[in-house]
Amino acid sequence: MSRSRVTVVDIARAAGVSKSTVSLVLQASPLVNEATRAKVNAVIRELGYVYNRGAANLRQSASSRIIGIIVNDLTNSFFAELAVGMDMVMQSAGYVQFLSNSAESVDRQREVVASMREHGISGLIISPARGTEAADLKPLAASGIPVVSVVRNVVGAKVSSLVSDNYAGAKAAVAHLVSLGHSRIAFLGGIANTTVFAERVQGWRDALVEAGFEAPDMLVIGSTASRAGGVAAIERALSLPAPPTAALCFNDAAAFGVCDGLRAAGREPGRDFAVVGFDDVIEAETAVPALTTVSVDPQGMGRRAAQLLLKQINTGKVEPEAIVGSVRLVVRQSCGAGEKAGRMSA
Amino acid sequence: MSRSRVTVVDIARAAGVSKSTVSLVLQASPLVNEATRAKVNAVIRELGYVYNRGAANLRQSASSRIIGIIVNDLTNSFFAELAVGMDMVMQSAGYVQFLSNSAESVDRQREVVASMREHGISGLIISPARGTEAADLKPLAASGIPVVSVVRNVVGAKVSSLVSDNYAGAKAAVAHLVSLGHSRIAFLGGIANTTVFAERVQGWRDALVEAGFEAPDMLVIGSTASRAGGVAAIERALSLPAPPTAALCFNDAAAFGVCDGLRAAGREPGRDFAVVGFDDVIEAETAVPALTTVSVDPQGMGRRAAQLLLKQINTGKVEPEAIVGSVRLVVRQSCGAGEKAGRMSA
Repeated sequence: MSRSRVTVVDIARAAGVSKSTVSLVLQASPLVNEATRAKVNAVIRELGYVYNRGAANLRQSASSRIIGIIVNDLTNSFFAELAVGMDMVMQSAGYVQFLSNSAESVDRQREVVASMREHGISGLIISPARGTEAADLKPLAASGIPVVSVVRNVVGAKVSSLVSDNYAGAKAAVAHLVSLGHSRIAFLGGIANTTVFAERVQGWRDALVEAGFEAPDMLVIGSTASRAGGVAAIERALSLPAPPTAALCFNDAAAFGVCDGLRAAGREPGRDFAVVGFDDVIEAETAVPALTTVSVDPQGMGRRAAQLLLKQINTGKVEPEAIVGSVRLVVRQSCGAGEKAGRMSA
Repeated sequence: MSRSRVTVVDIARAAGVSKSTVSLVLQASPLVNEATRAKVNAVIRELGYVYNRGAANLRQSASSRIIGIIVNDLTNSFFAELAVGMDMVMQSAGYVQFLSNSAESVDRQREVVASMREHGISGLIISPARGTEAADLKPLAASGIPVVSVVRNVVGAKVSSLVSDNYAGAKAAVAHLVSLGHSRIAFLGGIANTTVFAERVQGWRDALVEAGFEAPDMLVIGSTASRAGGVAAIERALSLPAPPTAALCFNDAAAFGVCDGLRAAGREPGRDFAVVGFDDVIEAETAVPALTTVSVDPQGMGRRAAQLLLKQINTGKVEPEAIVGSVRLVVRQSCGAGEKAGRMSA
């Protein structure tokens, strides 16, 4: 219910344009030229007019121009960067993005999905909470609202997905550590019952086995996928009878924690123990030692997810697409290779 | 426009309750007991009913149960933690929170505010973008939508605000560095034309002057308030003719960058150079060295902001309140005091 008394007619009169031009501007139509749009928008702001989308949606099937984003852990900078990447694309396409954090709660996620649906989102990008079932996303697909699942897949949900090649990334990282002379390589951090975890551990295992080394279960040390989780995991790893000399970490947040834990134990990451992360968040590059990591490029992934969703919104097609984004190993200092390179060039 | 064919009558029948009970549940009324609410909600989920709030809002003045949150830099973990703190309170109060990132763009912020207003938010918590003017928030206050401005104030905007005692925090931090024997103390990071920056620099300056030391402008080295900004600021500080031996940083993100930059220059933070941050983000505690910082407690600040907003929503009063939250210095290792304490107890 609009509390404003200003009408489209008032706007049209003040801007010196027709009523239908004002309507087109309100609907973000591409038929209006930039100068006219700017003039009308200036008047709208000046008069404090509020376009009542709720009423408009009841009158006509106007698009709401809102995109819903749900992430599972807003405190992990990976998801913040993912959202920033999405926003770049959504903003230039004329959408406003509303983000909610499920904090890994399926119940909260259900509330948020219902609320977003009710407010007429044009589409949803979701990094699903652990334990999300196909049924949680079905109502959206059934209503014809395009959904893109990112980072994690939801088995059986007929929605598009954009995930990383976790297996290949983990395998490449471990092969790199093997090439640096390591044979006792741990997998540190991350919570076990997720597909992403299973895929990365499988890559770790296969790379070790292919190199002729052991991949014992005791070297897989799960924890929360956070900095604090990384600290806990490296503590346990260092207390093993035959401790590892290197680790692939579940994600960059855990890898930073592993570096912290190594220093707390008087060992310098990169020099005394090789650390590789997964994600390539912004601070991976500026950290000391700079983090060697499997680059998923969160902002780039966000942009691609947004483009995939927009394509579905614009074409009106919600045929699910499953995209596995390629990843690449970015070698910096934390694996020790950078140190060696530095010494060689010195 | 609801695309669902399920009606309130269907829900009532399936749940074995009256139609008005279903309506009360849909309006999150406290008059329905928990067991009934759970039963009705289960049926709603099962049948895939969508409550059309847009239509409901036109029929009656039902509250929309959405809170808008706008932050100015989602990539800074401070704001993610702030949002998580708000969400805890909002969730238990039965609200869903929609967050948008202005990325310091006043234009984008204006679009987001308009979109949130249009979708009937019950209230807004905003950490305003740089350059936000009172006029940008006036339409909300004029519509009777409660607004709480956090972190930064908007001069002249008649909205409630919750900011930190930046001056006292900075002064306490510098006094602590003076007590550890430092006299040449820099202020590193942060962008100059904000109130927060001005208040913190003033605290730095007054503490130095009161201790009888100089506070030359060349020791105030601004940069982006990020990890990368901290790296750049300490590089410049170390290249001064008479470099500082300690620094108060604009925020924790910059302080982590200062630590990175010190290590890159072969100097160990805490031992060779004292570093103090501002915010107390989660990783301040687990970082190595653990960061000495002025604790603003972002999650706690988020919770208080949410409570302030809820009070205004529930009482229907939008009389602006201005709250300055107290801060406290948390002494850990990065200032060198922890090392000393450690040695003393050894």
